[in-house]
Amino acid sequence: MVYVTRRAEFSASHFYHSPNLTPEENRRIFGKCNNPLGHGHNYTVEVTVAGPVNPTTGMVLDLKEVKALVEQEVLQRMDHKFLNKEVPAFASKLPTTENIAVEIWNWLAPKLLFGKLHQIRVYETPDLYADYYGE
Amino acid sequence: MVYVTRRAEFSASHFYHSPNLTPEENRRIFGKCNNPLGHGHNYTVEVTVAGPVNPTTGMVLDLKEVKALVEQEVLQRMDHKFLNKEVPAFASKLPTTENIAVEIWNWLAPKLLFGKLHQIRVYETPDLYADYYGE
Amino acid sequence: MVYVTRRAEFSASHFYHSPNLTPEENRRIFGKCNNPLGHGHNYTVEVTVAGPVNPTTGMVLDLKEVKALVEQEVLQRMDHKFLNKEVPAFASKLPTTENIAVEIWNWLAPKLLFGKLHQIRVYETPDLYADYYGE
Amino acid sequence: MVYVTRRAEFSASHFYHSPNLTPEENRRIFGKCNNPLGHGHNYTVEVTVAGPVNPTTGMVLDLKEVKALVEQEVLQRMDHKFLNKEVPAFASKLPTTENIAVEIWNWLAPKLLFGKLHQIRVYETPDLYADYYGE
Amino acid sequence: MVYVTRRAEFSASHFYHSPNLTPEENRRIFGKCNNPLGHGHNYTVEVTVAGPVNPTTGMVLDLKEVKALVEQEVLQRMDHKFLNKEVPAFASKLPTTENIAVEIWNWLAPKLLFGKLHQIRVYETPDLYADYYGE
Amino acid sequence: MVYVTRRAEFSASHFYHSPNLTPEENRRIFGKCNNPLGHGHNYTVEVTVAGPVNPTTGMVLDLKEVKALVEQEVLQRMDHKFLNKEVPAFASKLPTTENIAVEIWNWLAPKLLFGKLHQIRVYETPDLYADYYGE
Repeated sequence: MVYVTRRAEFSASHFYHSPNLTPEENRRIFGKCNNPLGHGHNYTVEVTVAGPVNPTTGMVLDLKEVKALVEQEVLQRMDHKFLNKEVPAFASKLPTTENIAVEIWNWLAPKLLFGKLHQIRVYETPDLYADYYGE
Repeated sequence: MVYVTRRAEFSASHFYHSPNLTPEENRRIFGKCNNPLGHGHNYTVEVTVAGPVNPTTGMVLDLKEVKALVEQEVLQRMDHKFLNKEVPAFASKLPTTENIAVEIWNWLAPKLLFGKLHQIRVYETPDLYADYYGE
Repeated sequence: MVYVTRRAEFSASHFYHSPNLTPEENRRIFGKCNNPLGHGHNYTVEVTVAGPVNPTTGMVLDLKEVKALVEQEVLQRMDHKFLNKEVPAFASKLPTTENIAVEIWNWLAPKLLFGKLHQIRVYETPDLYADYYGE
Repeated sequence: MVYVTRRAEFSASHFYHSPNLTPEENRRIFGKCNNPLGHGHNYTVEVTVAGPVNPTTGMVLDLKEVKALVEQEVLQRMDHKFLNKEVPAFASKLPTTENIAVEIWNWLAPKLLFGKLHQIRVYETPDLYADYYGE
Repeated sequence: MVYVTRRAEFSASHFYHSPNLTPEENRRIFGKCNNPLGHGHNYTVEVTVAGPVNPTTGMVLDLKEVKALVEQEVLQRMDHKFLNKEVPAFASKLPTTENIAVEIWNWLAPKLLFGKLHQIRVYETPDLYADYYGE
Repeated sequence: MVYVTRRAEFSASHFYHSPNLTPEENRRIFGKCNNPLGHGHNYTVEVTVAGPVNPTTGMVLDLKEVKALVEQEVLQRMDHKFLNKEVPAFASKLPTTENIAVEIWNWLAPKLLFGKLHQIRVYETPDLYADYYGE
C-alpha cells in the first residue's frame, strides 16, 4: 500500500457569516472574516490516494488522471470565484477551511477509478490547514 | 550602506475591469480575473530600507518601527478587504500587483524616519511578483 | 471528524548535556550541540486539533482561541529564551526536539475547550522535526 | 512514543518505459516521462523513525546515525545517478516515486539499530510525493 | 518603472564534460556531475520584465503572454529533456546554471513585445542559482 | 557577466545589548532580544559572486571552492556558537543581521580567487534579512 499525494493551487474569495448568529455574534466570532465584500486566499489542496502499486506502471494510479479530476472537480468550481456566492455547496454552509476539505472529498471520492481516496488537506495560508479522511 | 528587508502578509480580494475597455476586451485581456464578485490572494509584501548601520544599535533602523508602519499603512488598509471597493487608491486604478507595489511605496516613503525606502516587492502568488523602486 | 492545524514560530537557544554521561560521552554523542553557551533555532510548532465541524460556525473550534493559547502557553514560555536555563521543564530533561514536542502537548492538552489535541509537530530546522500524539 | 523525521536531498535522472506495454502504450501512459534519454529531479526524502525517548539523551535515536545511514544507503546509491541504469533495484521495476519510496524502506529498515522505521516520504517535486509504511 | 517577475518550473537532466579538459581534469573539476549518463534537477526560472505601467490595464505587460512565451521558448525546449543531447545550444557549451540563464535570455529577449527583459534567474536547486542581465 | 549565488545555513545564538545605552534604553530598544542568556536562529547566508563565464567550464567559478570557503570562513566561525561571546568580531559590535552581513563580506572578499564578491544576504528568519554590497 502506497499513498500518493498531488498538490494543486487555486485563488478564491470568501467571508464568514452565519444566519444562526446575531450580527454582533458574527462580528465577535468571525472578526475581520465577517466583511461581506469578502477577502481572499491562495488555497493549496493536497489529494492523497492509497492503493497497491501496479507492477506494470510502477504507479498507484495515473497521476495525469488525478490532475484532470482535480482540474475538473475542484479548480473549475472554485478558482477565481467568490465561494459564498458562486459555489452552490457554500450557499448553505460556510466556506471555512474545514468545510472546503469535506466538500472536496465529496466531489472527488465517487470519481476515482483506481485507488482509494485517503486524505484531503486544504491550506488557507501556509500557517493554517485542515485534513479530512472521509469520516 | 546596508539594505534591510521586512516581510509581511495580508489576505485580500480584487478583480480587474477597466472602464476604458469594452466588456469583451475586459474578458479577453483579464480572463478569470474579470469576475466582478472578486477572487483573492494571500499577498506577501517585502519592504526594503537602505541606510548606514547605526554604530550603537548595529541596525539601519528599528525594525519594530517598520513593522508598526507596515501594520498601520498597509495591513490596516488592505488586510481582509475587497481592494477595488474598500481601498480608495484602487477606486480609479486597477489593483494589479504592479499598482499595489506603487501604492505601498507612496504610503510608506513619506513616513520613514530613518533610512531610505529602497524597494517594495509584492507577491500575488509565489510565482508572480512586482518590484518598485520609487521611479 | 476534521483535523485543523495552526502553525506558530519562536526563536530560542539551547544546548545538550546530560549529567548521566561523562564529559567525553557528552561531547561524542552531542557534538557541536554540547557547547554550554548554547546555540539557537527558529522553531516552528504545528498544533493539530481534531473534532466534528460545528454546523453554525463551520469550524472545529475558534482558531483565535488556539492562537491565544499557543501564545500564552508556548511562546511566552519559550520565545527568545535559553531553554535549559529559563524553562523549568528543561531544567531536568534535555530540550531536544522530542522533549519539546512532549512538553508542548502537556501544556496544551488540558487547556483546550473544544476538540481533542491530536498532534504536536516541532521543527528544529526545516530538515528535522518530531511528532507526538500524547502517548 | 515520538516520531522523528530527518530530511535529505538528492538529484537523479530517470525515465519510464515498461517492457510489458507496447511502444504506443508507453508513450500514451507515460507521456514526456517516456523519453529514454531521461530527465531529472531534485528528490527530497523524509525518513521517520518511531520510538520511546531515551531519558538520558532526550532522543529517540542518534540522528547523526540516521544521517550516516541515509548517506550510505540512499545518497551513495542514487545521488547524481541515472536510476534506471545505475541502481540495480530499478533494472526490473520502474523508478517511480512509489517504487523509490518502497526501495528506500527496504534499504533502511534492516539497518536501524534503535527505533522502528515508521514512514518513508519521497518528493519528486514539491507538488508530488509518495508515502510508504512498510506494508 | 515596475519590474514584474513570472516563475516557471521544468525538469531536465544534464552532465558536465569539457572536450578541452583531460578525462582526469573533468573528473576532478566536475566530480559527480561528470557522470555521462546524466543526473537531473527540478529547475526554476524567473523571468523579470521592466516597463512603465499601462494606465488602462494596470500592468507592465500581459502576463499571459509572458507565460505563453516561456512555455514555447523555454519549457518546450528543455522540459523532460537531456539538455546535452536534445537542446542544440548545449551541444557545444556546457548546460551549467550560468549558461542556461544566458541561453534563456537569448531566446526570450527578441520575442518580448512590451517591456524590456531585465533579469533571468535560474535555480538548479533551492541552494544554487544564477542571474543574468543581458551583458 | 553572470551572478552566481550559493546558499548555506547555520544555527547560532545572540543577544543585543549596547554599552552606550542605559539598561532601560537597552530594554526599550531591543525588547526580548536584550535577554543576556541569548536566543537563537537558523540563519541562512547567500553569497553572490559576479564574473564572466569561463568558456571551458561554463562556470563563473568552481562552486565547490565557494562551498569550502563558506564552510571555513563562515560556518566554522559561527555554527552552533553564541555569537556575542565566541566570535571576536562581535565582542565590540552587536551581532545584528546587518553586522553579520558586513562581517561575512569582510571574511570572504579577500579570499575569493575568481570572480568578484557582489552581495551577501543574511536571513535571520524567513521574514527578515539584510543585504550588503561591500560599501
